Parts: sequence; C-alpha cells; structure tokens
Amino acid sequence: MLMTEMRTHTCNELNAGYIGKEVILCGWVQAIRNLGGMTFIDLRDRYGITQLAFNSETQSELCETAKEFGREWVLQAAGTVAERYSKNKNIPTGDVEIIVSKIHVLSQSEIPPFTIEDESDGGDELRMKYRYLDLRRNPVKKNMLFRHQIAFEIRNYMNNIGFVEIETPFLIKSTPEGARDFVVPSRVNPGEFYALPQSPQTFKQLLMLSGYDRYFQIVKCFRDEDLRTDRQPEFTQIDCEMSFVTQEDVLNTFEGLVKHIFQKVKNIEIPDIERMTYADAMKLYGSDKPDTRFDMRFVELNDRLQHKDFSVFNQAELVIGIVAKDCGNYSRKQLDELVDFVKRPQVGAGGLVYVLCQPDGNYKSSVDKFYDQNDLRKVAEKCHAEEGDLILIMSGKTEKTRSQLSSLRLELGRRLGLQKSGEYKLLWVVDFPLLEWDEETERFYAKHHPFTAPKPEHEALLLTAPREVNANAYDLVINGSEIGGGSIRIHNSAMQQKMFNVLGFSDEEAQKQFGFLLNAFKYGAPPHGGIAFGLDRLCAVLSDLDSIRDFIAFPKNNAARDTMIDSPATISEEQLKELGIEIKN
Amino acid sequence: MLMTEMRTHTCNELNAGYIGKEVILCGWVQAIRNLGGMTFIDLRDRYGITQLAFNSETQSELCETAKEFGREWVLQAAGTVAERYSKNKNIPTGDVEIIVSKIHVLSQSEIPPFTIEDESDGGDELRMKYRYLDLRRNPVKKNMLFRHQIAFEIRNYMNNIGFVEIETPFLIKSTPEGARDFVVPSRVNPGEFYALPQSPQTFKQLLMLSGYDRYFQIVKCFRDEDLRTDRQPEFTQIDCEMSFVTQEDVLNTFEGLVKHIFQKVKNIEIPDIERMTYADAMKLYGSDKPDTRFDMRFVELNDRLQHKDFSVFNQAELVIGIVAKDCGNYSRKQLDELVDFVKRPQVGAGGLVYVLCQPDGNYKSSVDKFYDQNDLRKVAEKCHAEEGDLILIMSGKTEKTRSQLSSLRLELGRRLGLQKSGEYKLLWVVDFPLLEWDEETERFYAKHHPFTAPKPEHEALLLTAPREVNANAYDLVINGSEIGGGSIRIHNSAMQQKMFNVLGFSDEEAQKQFGFLLNAFKYGAPPHGGIAFGLDRLCAVLSDLDSIRDFIAFPKNNAARDTMIDSPATISEEQLKELGIEIKN
Repeated sequence: MLMTEMRTHTCNELNAGYIGKEVILCGWVQAIRNLGGMTFIDLRDRYGITQLAFNSETQSELCETAKEFGREWVLQAAGTVAERYSKNKNIPTGDVEIIVSKIHVLSQSEIPPFTIEDESDGGDELRMKYRYLDLRRNPVKKNMLFRHQIAFEIRNYMNNIGFVEIETPFLIKSTPEGARDFVVPSRVNPGEFYALPQSPQTFKQLLMLSGYDRYFQIVKCFRDEDLRTDRQPEFTQIDCEMSFVTQEDVLNTFEGLVKHIFQKVKNIEIPDIERMTYADAMKLYGSDKPDTRFDMRFVELNDRLQHKDFSVFNQAELVIGIVAKDCGNYSRKQLDELVDFVKRPQVGAGGLVYVLCQPDGNYKSSVDKFYDQNDLRKVAEKCHAEEGDLILIMSGKTEKTRSQLSSLRLELGRRLGLQKSGEYKLLWVVDFPLLEWDEETERFYAKHHPFTAPKPEHEALLLTAPREVNANAYDLVINGSEIGGGSIRIHNSAMQQKMFNVLGFSDEEAQKQFGFLLNAFKYGAPPHGGIAFGLDRLCAVLSDLDSIRDFIAFPKNNAARDTMIDSPATISEEQLKELGIEIKN
Repeated sequence: MLMTEMRTHTCNELNAGYIGKEVILCGWVQAIRNLGGMTFIDLRDRYGITQLAFNSETQSELCETAKEFGREWVLQAAGTVAERYSKNKNIPTGDVEIIVSKIHVLSQSEIPPFTIEDESDGGDELRMKYRYLDLRRNPVKKNMLFRHQIAFEIRNYMNNIGFVEIETPFLIKSTPEGARDFVVPSRVNPGEFYALPQSPQTFKQLLMLSGYDRYFQIVKCFRDEDLRTDRQPEFTQIDCEMSFVTQEDVLNTFEGLVKHIFQKVKNIEIPDIERMTYADAMKLYGSDKPDTRFDMRFVELNDRLQHKDFSVFNQAELVIGIVAKDCGNYSRKQLDELVDFVKRPQVGAGGLVYVLCQPDGNYKSSVDKFYDQNDLRKVAEKCHAEEGDLILIMSGKTEKTRSQLSSLRLELGRRLGLQKSGEYKLLWVVDFPLLEWDEETERFYAKHHPFTAPKPEHEALLLTAPREVNANAYDLVINGSEIGGGSIRIHNSAMQQKMFNVLGFSDEEAQKQFGFLLNAFKYGAPPHGGIAFGLDRLCAVLSDLDSIRDFIAFPKNNAARDTMIDSPATISEEQLKELGIEIKN
C-alpha cells in the first residue's frame, strides 16, 4: 500500500463536508454486515465509528477479502468518502461511508472472550483477566477519559490560584500508626525496609515548614488493608496543604475547587456548600457522611416513649425514629422486609418498631400493646409525621442505634428512589472530635490523624478530658460519600509531643518514628492546614457509579490481586538472596 | 490580636501604591538590623521579602520585643505601609516598609544548622539531613517551582493535542529483564511479591491495544541499581505512547512538545531538531548522546598513520583524532594533564598522541620519531587543523577508543568553555541497533527494551544476523544528555515471541513473565510506538545544572538512603511475621 501516513482522519471526523475526499482510516472491526451485494464494516477507534462499504459487483475481490475479517481485527482502509444511502442519525459520521479502494489488515484477532459492546456478556472476573479488552468498551473508556478530564481541571485550577505541585517520595519509612504499610526490602541496606506512603502527610507538612505556602499533588497512596468491596491497595489522592490559614481559608479555597470541577466536568453550578457539625450529623443522620439528597432526619423520642411499660425502650439509652413519607400503607410483608434488613449482621439490630399513620387519623404499630393512640399521636407530632406516613423507631446504646438507623435510612432512600442520580448534595462536616477511644486496645486513636491540632480553645482539655476535645477538622461529603477530609495541623513541637503521648507513644517511640518532624518544628513552623480528596471516589460519585474500580485502568480484585498480569507472584531465589530475606513457611 | 484573617498580603506584593494602607503579613525572619533608633526586619515568605520597621522612640516596647527575635522565627505583623527612606531597587517591595503596630510570634526557631541564604555554609550531607531547611533557600525553591511549571506545561500541551493521562499501577510484577526491581511482599498472598514498575512500558502498550490512541503519564518509576552520582532509586518519567503511527509521527509530535516547553519555560524558540543516525553519532562523536554545542568531530586517521614504524597505531583497529582549536601553544604541563586525564581509570586509555600545529607551519608531536613533517601535514590536512591548533589522537579497539576519545572531547569542551551555559543544542539520534551483545553473559540484550520492533526491512536478519538489525528507536539528546528515548514497538505475538527467543527466554519463561502481553497481542493490536522522557534530567538540563537531585524535593543519597527521615529502617517483628518473611543474616 502506498501510504505516506498511517491515517488521514480518525473514525469520528468525517461527515457530509468530506464527500468525494480520499481518506485513510485505521481502527478495529466493530461489526460486519453482509447485505446482498454489499458488505459493510463498522470501523471503530477511540473517537468513534465510521462505516466502510464494499460493493461485491464493482469490487468483488476486495469484498471477498472483507468477508473473511472478524470482530476486533485491526484494519487500515483507504477510500473515498461517499454519501450514505441509509443515514444513521445517532453518530456524527452517520451521513457518510467510505467506498474502500484498498484495505490492509494490520492485525488479526481471535474471537474475544466476551463481547466488546456497551453491555458485555463477560462476567466481572473474565473482564478483569482481559482488562485490556474490557477497556475497549465505551462505558469503561468514558470513565477513563472522565478521570483524565477531572485531574486536568484540578491541576488547572490549583495552578491558577498559586498552588505548586511537588512530588513527594514513594520510598519512605514505615510507621505503626494508622493502617498497615506496604514495605519494600532494601538490598543496599540489608535488614532494612522502605514503606510505601499511605499519604504524603508528613512531607506536605515539611513543605509548609519549608515555606512553599500552597502545595498540592495528585498522587498514588498505598494501604495494605484487608480489602472490602470498594477498596484498592493503591488509590489516588488529591493532596493539598496551605500555610498561614484558618479553617475558614481552607474550606473556602477548596469549595472553589469543587465548584470549578462541577462547572467544568458536569456543567453544574453548585451553590455554597452547607456546613454541619459532626455532632449534628451524628444526631440527625447517625453518620458523619450523611446523604443529604433526602431529609428523613432522626427524631429523638426518649421523652415520648420511655416510662411506659415497654421495657426495651425504657432500658435504652436512646430511642430514635425516622419518617418514611407516604409509606403508611406498607404491607406486613414490606414491614417484615425492613425488620429483616435491620437484623442482618451488617446492621446488627435486634428489631424495629413501626407506627403506621393511617388515612383515618388512627395509628397502628408493632407496640400497640404498650402505647395507646394518644401516645402514638404524640410521637407522630414530634416526628412531624402526617397521615399516610410510616414512622420507624429503633433503640439501644446511642452510637450503635444511630448507626443502625442510619443504615435503615439509606435503605429506605434506595427503596423510595430518594437518592436521585444526577442530583448532587454537598456538605462540609466540621468540628470533628480530635480523638476516638478504642474499646479493644483501650487507647485513644486520632480521629483524623496524629498531626491534627485540637481547637485552640480546647487545648487545655487534652490531658484532662480528651474525649471533649474537638479539632478544626472537616470532611467534604457528596451524596453520602466522604470525598475529602482535612484539618488544621499542629505546628509546634511541644504540642505534637503531647499529642503523641495522648496516643500512647513513649517519647522514645515518638522520636524514633517522627523525630524528623518534631525536630523540624523547632525551626520556625508556620500555622498550616490542608485537605486530601480521593480522586477515584470523586470520579465515581460524579458519575453516579458505586465502584471506584470503574475509574481505575488496571484495578486489583478483592484479594489484592491483578488477575491480568497475575500478580503478586513468586520471585526468584536469587532475588530473595540479594535482598537478604527468606520466605517463612 | 484582633485579626480576622491571618494575612492580607504576601511579602512580595506591597509597593508605593499601597502607602498608607493597613496590612498584615506573615513570614520568616530573614535578617534583623539594629540601626541606632530603628530596628529593621526582613520578613520572607515564598513570594519575596518585605521590610518591617520598628522605631525605638515611638514604639519602644515593640522595638524591644523585636530585638529578641532570631533568624527563621515566624511572625505575623500588622502595620501601615510607608515609603522607605533608603530604597532597595533590587526587590519589588523595595520602595516601602511596614511601620509595625502589632506583632505576633507564630513560632520561634532554634538557630538553623546552616545559613538559609542563596549561598549556604552547609555541606551537602547536612543540608540533606535538614532538607526541609535547605528547601527554604531561594535556589532550591526556584528549582521546585521550575519543575512544577515544566510539568504543568507538559500536561497542558499533551491534553491540547488529545493525549489522555491514564494512571498505571505501581504494584505490578517482577520481571528478570532490565535493571533490578524493588519488590513488595504481599501479606494477603504469602510468599508472593509485587514489584514497583521500572516504567509503565507494558501497561502503556496494553492501553494502545485497548484503543486509547494517545496516552501519556507523568509518573514515578523505580530501579534498584547501585547508585552512581546522579541516579535516584525513584525518578519521574514523562511516559507517552501513540497508535497508528510511524517513527516520523512520533518524532514530530514530541518535537512539538519540546518546542513548547522551551518556548514556555525558557522563552526560547528552538529550530527544527537535527537528526543523526546512531552509527554516525558513534563515528563522529564516539557517543550516542553527543554534546553538539561544539563540533570537534572525530577524524579517522588509519590511512594516514598506519603502515609507518609506530606499532601502537599499526596494531590498532582504529586511529582517530580531534582538533582542539587554538591550542597549538599548549605547554608540556597542559599536554601532560590531558594524558593524565585519559589514563584515569574512568577513561582507561593507555595514552594519547598529540600534534601541535605551530605558527610557523611546522608540526611538533609526541611521535616525531615515527612521522616526519610531511606525514603530520597529511594528518593535519585530513583533520582540517590549522596553524595554532592542537590535534589529539587515540587508537585501539574501535568501540573502546571512540568512547575514550569522547571523554577527552568532553573534557576539552569543559576546559575550553565550549559547553556554553544558556545555549541548547538538541538532537534526535535515530536508527539504534536492536540488540547488543554482552561479552560477560554471552547473550544479546535489547538495546532499548524487548518490546522494540526491528525495522521491517531488517526483520529477516533477526535470526541470521542479529547484530545487523536496526530498530526504529530514537533518543532525544540535549547538550550531551539523553533526555528521552523511545521506539516503534512490536505489535504481533509471533514477532514478540521471536524477540524473546533471541534474548534467550525459553517459551515457558516468556509465557510466565509476559504471557499477558503475548496473549493480548492476539486480540487485534494496533501498530504503536512511543517515548519516555526523564523529567528530573530535563529540569536539570534546562537549568544548566548537573545534578537531578537539585530538582527532587526529598532525594535519596548515593546509598539510597533518605537521611532526613532516616529510611530505610528496620520494621517490627510483628510486621515481618504478618508478611511471612524473615531477615537472613
């Protein structure tokens, strides 16, 4: 073939304006149709599809050749753009086709293990093993391009407001705090290990100390966790830090970023983001990441339901209810489904009390034995439940009950279609507690991380009443997903040391693990704070998809395994020897 | 202090236009000067310096406070912008100062271990240990901002021409080919390991196979090598790949990128980049990355210098010379220095023959015993050496001699000031051989990597005369540094298998290591090719600096150690146990 370039156009470029032009296209065979005297091939590339046409009368040899092609073969086709007889209004190239004069098979293809279509017949495992074929499918491609666009817009915005992207190291040091580290044995320093960063936290703080003022980085982070459905051992963070700022400065700066992203990639102007304290979020939604696309707030009912004869409520620390609008006509079966839902081990409740607000103004409940119509009316009044509504009530220990009712609330949101796709509700959750107590290990853990500063007005409580100390720590929540979180940091060596002590580090341990940071604080540290967003999650939420895997080109499965390249894998004895390590059976 | 925001301006913003305004600044104490009745502080932030002024008469208390401050303390200062008595024309804020009304010490600082000045008194090791302080220095800060700008401009350009940035995984699989891998033990899959990528090579090829057409990524890569002066175990690559392209397409595309970078970050319009074959580069400069800022090409002198009585030349495979312009007056001492230079173990030559072209038209050489004036004149003529020039001649085995003379050529370039700072000479070196023979292991290695395609017209030679096979492989060289390299890839399973065989892989080994790629090629692979640039090196070359460490925020030393965080380090017994590995003593 005498072609000086491999292609003149892509498969999404040609339209009626090109009729009569000689062109060369390259791409994959999406479909072949033999219609009597004509053979048509849909040629696909990244950009779109163009129809190739072969006439069996005028080009019998070419047409015979074309009939042998299979799906996913790679072709280079030269020909003339012609008007199509039967136009396809669904694609930009639908008015034309190429009357092929020369064709060159660049690669043949075996029959793919699943169909390369928007809806594939391949199961999850098969598509992961052949991820390179799965990535050809439009929905997956769309996700990859979407992710690129978001990352690009983030960098644009951050650069424009003076943030500098600085790369922090990947081979760092293992620390016992937080999740498990992935470690990397050092060959040059036998017996010693690097760790892969769970986040660039300490490095970005050092950069503030170095005076960089506004830092960001879109960067891979690593956590060796037992994987739940939607975790990945490696994930991408939009990591940001600023100096000489208050919480207000940080929230405003990143509210600007979030608005920019929505505007650029979704063409949505979002209003100023509401704020809610952690305490309110827990009280009203039982969650620090409430889905505020729908209301259904918790109502505390201790005053209405205790001191009667129902011992379950009487013994409970907290009795709370939610109203399911217009569900007062739920059948026994529907109610039983809800009871079953809360009894699932993932939710773990003992049961559920319902009150049906009937159209006739009467109430029907699962606890009619203990409460009369008047009692139930008072409950309904406090809940602002109206005729035709359903009240669902749970009770027990405060934290546990809130969490269980939160699960039920989200389940109802799903059942009632209240989590509308394409609708976005954003929320800053603020004033997180600094610490959380762990019953099992009987110690405090940092709620955010050990570098978060207590609110200045709570500093004095740190040693006397640690549970009451709040932090200028904040999360960004979109549609019930935590998209980002951050805090104002400690910038003082003594306070950092005190924090490590509260977390149970001895001075020696603190010095061994974080000596460089404690030391750095001695040389003039600016007040600073920051935030980190999960890029994978952000992409998923903005696309109304549940799984972050959909936005990762080559994800790992729930066993942290890449089934495509078959990794992890054994390494050679020689490698182990060089590294000075042995496998222990 | 009643301040609603931490600062109103940065330390580089204020000028005469702000006189009379109330402002708040934050920053570090760069210097304190007590001049009779006045105390002045230079307050520094990322952006610049502003002078704070304290009058001992009108603000005696404040002035006394300020006298206690030390270098690198962090201050918040409120006051009024005033015209300066003695102006400083060297800085944008030099016309004004702040008459401070309130001052707040945000952090004190111990005396830094070295001076935070453009020229520091700290040695390399000390500055690395306290890298967070070193990063405060202007020259280092300038480098970090420069790197950010380059990366940002690259992304802009690539996005504009339709390249998609796609993140490839960091936890991949170890392969025996190429440099040593860093490995990561898997806890979930005991006895198995991930490897950190030396480059995303196979993943970017899979993305081409998936139809992404134009991919790029600015990405960290890892090599566990014994470090030379200017290598880092982790480094950053601008990794690119394109489908349906010829070498010409790739070179033109990235020539566009390089021109864009020069234009944006150096304000230099570079002309079209010259091309030279690998064979010519070796013949004319003895190097595949010649510094073409100066000429000094090799001249082959076998025909002029052999067949006389000088056995060293007679026995040599190659006799080559270079001309050092206007060095015909070199003293014995200067010539001896050059001889000593080539005898250094790093160069490894046995000696050096010189011919001084004297002003009177006569020649004086170290081999006058063997060659008469006429012989030497013929040498000078072939070298185009003129009166007053110096000819330097080496001989021996072809490859070795070229490499040695190349070292001498670069040394002369340095001595004669021919490697001009601020001048940039770019070169595409093309037509690299596909393979190179390793004497020690007695096998072929891929010159570029095992995925590089032989030139189509050389394919037939692959099994019969592998040394003669060239590839469409190319390097970008700037001022004698290899900045990038790439090739047109194999896109066919059978050819890839054949290549693995030539490299000594059994079919089983090839399948075990690269089965996913060989398999992927069976489902319609497009012709593709790409390139990868070293971002660290690019930054260094564009800044006329030698070391890539200057452009890495937190580099490792030559023992692959981060002395700041003291990593690598031991990990706990518990961690080792969880990972199922043991340290072998």
